[in-house]
Parts: sequence; C-alpha cells; structure tokens
Amino acid sequence: MTVNYQERRARLAAMLPAYEVDAMLVTSGVNVRYLTGLASSNAAVLVGADGSALLVTDNRYIDKTRGLDVEAVEASDVASRLAVPGVGIEAASMSVATFNRLGGGLVPLEPLVERLRMVKDDDELELVRTACAITDQAFADISRNIRPGVTERDLARLLDARMIELGADKPGFETIVAAGENGAIPHHAPTDRELRSGDLVTMDFGALYQGYHADMTRTVCLGRPADWQREIYDLVAEAQRAGCQAVLPGVPAQQVDLASRSIIMAAGHGDRFRHGLGHGVGLEIHEDPFLGPSRTGRLEDRVPITVEPGVYLPGRGGVRIEDTLVTRGSGAELFTKTTKELLVL
Amino acid sequence: MTVNYQERRARLAAMLPAYEVDAMLVTSGVNVRYLTGLASSNAAVLVGADGSALLVTDNRYIDKTRGLDVEAVEASDVASRLAVPGVGIEAASMSVATFNRLGGGLVPLEPLVERLRMVKDDDELELVRTACAITDQAFADISRNIRPGVTERDLARLLDARMIELGADKPGFETIVAAGENGAIPHHAPTDRELRSGDLVTMDFGALYQGYHADMTRTVCLGRPADWQREIYDLVAEAQRAGCQAVLPGVPAQQVDLASRSIIMAAGHGDRFRHGLGHGVGLEIHEDPFLGPSRTGRLEDRVPITVEPGVYLPGRGGVRIEDTLVTRGSGAELFTKTTKELLVL
Repeated sequence: MTVNYQERRARLAAMLPAYEVDAMLVTSGVNVRYLTGLASSNAAVLVGADGSALLVTDNRYIDKTRGLDVEAVEASDVASRLAVPGVGIEAASMSVATFNRLGGGLVPLEPLVERLRMVKDDDELELVRTACAITDQAFADISRNIRPGVTERDLARLLDARMIELGADKPGFETIVAAGENGAIPHHAPTDRELRSGDLVTMDFGALYQGYHADMTRTVCLGRPADWQREIYDLVAEAQRAGCQAVLPGVPAQQVDLASRSIIMAAGHGDRFRHGLGHGVGLEIHEDPFLGPSRTGRLEDRVPITVEPGVYLPGRGGVRIEDTLVTRGSGAELFTKTTKELLVL
Repeated sequence: MTVNYQERRARLAAMLPAYEVDAMLVTSGVNVRYLTGLASSNAAVLVGADGSALLVTDNRYIDKTRGLDVEAVEASDVASRLAVPGVGIEAASMSVATFNRLGGGLVPLEPLVERLRMVKDDDELELVRTACAITDQAFADISRNIRPGVTERDLARLLDARMIELGADKPGFETIVAAGENGAIPHHAPTDRELRSGDLVTMDFGALYQGYHADMTRTVCLGRPADWQREIYDLVAEAQRAGCQAVLPGVPAQQVDLASRSIIMAAGHGDRFRHGLGHGVGLEIHEDPFLGPSRTGRLEDRVPITVEPGVYLPGRGGVRIEDTLVTRGSGAELFTKTTKELLVL
C-alpha cells in the first residue's frame, strides 16, 4: 500500500492562505500520522503553504522516519523546534501549557486536518473494511459463549482477545457488554454480572486495524423474548434501517439523524434515545462528521460513519444496533455484515 | 475496596492557597477518576480550597456517578458548566481551544493532581501488583511460542490476548516485540519479521488492571547466544540490578539513573543507551517521577517505578531488561517477578 502523504499535505497547504498563515504546526498524533505515515507518541510536522514539510520526532522514533517522503530531524522537544511566530497551531489538541511555553505569535486554528480526514481514500477504506471484517468474525467466533452464567466481563474479554487473534492491532475502544437492566446504560462498562435467561444483551465493540477503527453494536436475547423486548428490538431495527438508507453523499447530517430518530419518537420513545445517531470513524473512533439533531453540514462521498440508534428503559434493559457503513455515490456500502435479525440464544 | 476519594480531594484542596486560587477545575480524565472514582471520557470536577467538590459529566456517564461520594450534575459541555473567573485549570491537559472558549479569568496551573498521584495508597499498590502478576503470567503462558518461524506480530498478539484472558482490562500500551536487528530500535513496533535462530528477542509489555498499569521488558535468545549477545545481556542485567538497588525513598532521581547508567558507560556503551532509566506507573503508563540524567527531585515512599536500561547496537540487535518495583522504607518491592537470567529458547 503506497499512501500518497505528499498529496495529503498539499491539500492542507491549500487551506492555509484562507487562515492567513504561511505554515501550520501539526502536533496531534493521529494528524501527524495522517500527513506523514509516522505513528508515534511524540512528533510534530510543520506544513508550509508552499507544500514544504519538516517532521520532528525524538530519538525513540527517528529510525522510523527513514523511508518516509518527508525530511525528518531529531529533537526531544518536538514542538519548540518548529514553533515560530506567525505559524498556525492546532488549538483543539495543543495544551495551554505547551502554547504558553512556545512563546507568542502562534495562531490558534480550527481543526483543519480533521476536515481533510473525513473523506477517505481507497487505502483507508480498505483498512476500515478489514477492521469491520475482523469485528464481524470475532462476534461469530464467540457467539456460542453468549449464554447464561458467563459474566459481562467474560464476554468482553473473549471479544477483545479474539479480535487480537484475528489480526487487530487491539480493540479500538473499551468494549461494552451490557446485560439485562445494564442495557439501559448506553456506555455501561462490563461488570461481573452474570448473563441470565431473559436478558437482552448489548455488545458494542470494534477492532483497530493498522490504525483504523471499526464500530459495531448488536443486541441479542437469551431465551424467548418477552413482548416488550421484541417490541423495542423491532423498533430500533426499523430506525436503524431507516438511518442507514439515509446515508448518502449530499444529505444533511441532521436529516440522517431525523430519518432514524423520528421513528423512535413516533413510537413514544424519543426521550429514551438521548445520544447522537452516529459518528465518523477512521484514525479515531469518534471523528467528524457527527450525526445528531443539532449537527450541521452534509455528508460527502467516501465517509465511513456509524448509524446506532437505541432505546433504553431504565431498570429493565435496552437495545442498540449499530453498523459502520460508508457513503458512496450510489448508496452506502455496509462494512459490518453481522445479521440484524434478533438472535435468540 | 473502598478508596477514600474525599481524602484525595482534601489533599488537593490543601495545595490551592499556595497558587492563590479558591478552586481548581480538573478536566484530565485520569485525574477526574483519581479524585472521584468516575472513569469516563467526558467529565470535570471542581475542587474548592474548602474541600467542596462538584462533578459534571454527560448523559452517557451520569448513571455511573450514583454511589460516588461527590455531588454530580449532568451537562454535555462539562467544563463550561464549572468554569468561572479565578478558577485554576490544568494547563498541561486543557486545550487552547477549550481555554479560549471558556472565557477569561482562568488561571493556568502546573500539574498538581499528578504530583499527588505519585505516592500510591494501599489500594493502588494492590492494583499495580495485580497488573504485574498478570503480566508475569502472560509471559510464562506464551513463552513456549517464542520460537523460530513465529512473527513479531504473532507474539505481540499472543501476549495481548493472554493478558486479557487473565483478567487485564486490556494491554496497557502498545506491546513491543523486536527480533534480531529490530532489537536495536527501542520503540520498535511489531512487524511480520519471523523470529530466527540466533536472534535476541526483546518483549516490552504490560497489563492494565482496573485502571492501573504494569510495565515489564525481557530479552531472550533463540539458540545459543553469541559472545557479543551474552556480553551485552550480562552488562544490561548488571546495570538493571544496580538501578533496582538504588530505588529507595529519599534518593535523588538522578542518582538512581546514574547507578545504572554508569555501568553501561564504563563498558563503553553509554552512547547506545539514549533513553531515561525509568518512569512512574499508575493510572498512566508514563507518569511522575521520571528517572534520567537531568531529572530533579527525590523518590518518595510508595512510588511504583520502572528500571529499564538497554543497550542497542544498530544493525545487530539489542537488550533491554525492565521491572516495575515500588519504593518502600526498607528497600524496593519487586512487582514483576519473571526471571532475569538469560533465557535460551
């Protein structure tokens, strides 16, 4: 895979004149990786409006810069090596302490690299696709372990270990397993609660693969579902389908959210779905664009994004169903392929 | 385990008058967790010099605040709910964008909670001890897989998966497996390079357990070691032993570093050991205090810390040996217990 980092930097360079800076100091780790290919915990790259670039990292990573298409120098204090008055900085990630230490004249800029990162190239789409395939496979491989007596924590560990065995760098975020009443907590952290017959069990997890994320949620039922369980499952599934169908280039983010949310609202559960409908995925698990009632902007082509409506009934349980899919001209390509039929285990 | 969060906040409160602020707005995730027990990706706590505290988090985590010993309210923009002029902020972690958005009158403070976090209480030491035990066990369990033909990436995956199976939340950082010539790169990321007979293989890894980290490095030899391999192994092992022996309450950080580094320098390899000797471990994998030639301060009692000298010979290979241990009045308690004899596999 030969990623064209120079072209990525050229696109950033072209944005700079509008912000009246001659260069931008990029210090966010994922953004440095996006622009140069260097994955590290301490690096910065200065990108000039003329397309020039200089990468700085410390002695732990300097060897990894060989073979990159950008000049690299070694320094322990990577940002100060590149900070000169008039240069733009990443205000969303640079700390107040670093900003003050670097001296005056730096220009806080809004997230520009993040904006570039929304639209993925073929190489990136292939990595997200692979991350999603690992996620699907891990679920298939551990699904026979979803049974009464195992704990939420057990299941989370099985999923995490299996994703790694299948080639993931690691789990892309803290795996959620929420059984029974815990399913009413959208971001429940796994506990020692044992799964019981009659539980709805929600699993939200995803692999990280070569730096790129997958994100998927499935809710299953242990034993025959009660009427209320079947009802909210079918509702969320219908809402999720409608959301996925609305994912098209050119569609406003609000409209995708509404396509899904209106179905849950019409069923009287609008106040039980209090989070956004979805978010972009890529080098970060949550990145632009975001789908929600007050989000602005329109989807572009080639944007991997999640659609994840849920209904949460305090004290009883919840359902969330989530896919990662990508906008394409002709519609969306579904990356997570695990069935959304209600699995009764 | 009943952690006394109130006492932690009281210790922070007692530091505030010296900085001429009535309250501190804590926004760093691990620091909020340390002061309140809430693990989340979006929370802030305002700690008053009078010992009062108010926690803010969003609707995803508000349910997790029940049962905490601190008042909690829900807001999506957690910091702005608590930012009032005259309040101190965490300059090392708050972004320039957030600082500017919150309006004037905020007082950038140095890392205060980090200073508190250096000295661990019994509960914390037990968690680091357990994280280290999982790390030891994972190494023991996968060690028969360290053989010619497996790749660096395979071994890293085995270690990661095994740590999770043994109860880790997840690997605490990116596992390093570096074979042969790659061992000369201190922070080498695992590749598809296969292990071969004659390789030194360095593995640097550690479990995260209930939020606390372990950190251990071992270097083994595939087949009978060549003279140069045996020589640098024995040298690093001697330096590591000397460093561990120097870890005592009251000893200057520089002195611990020198105790170990001087041995490598005396053997003529001083320029092949270009990183610090060690670092504190706790809620973060790298935290205060740091051991290095230009580090100031003295070790206190009850500080878990790593000792990890290395010698790296470009193009040939390297050796690093690392333990996590904790300063105690009578000496150091070793947390990572895997043998440091040269394992010939």
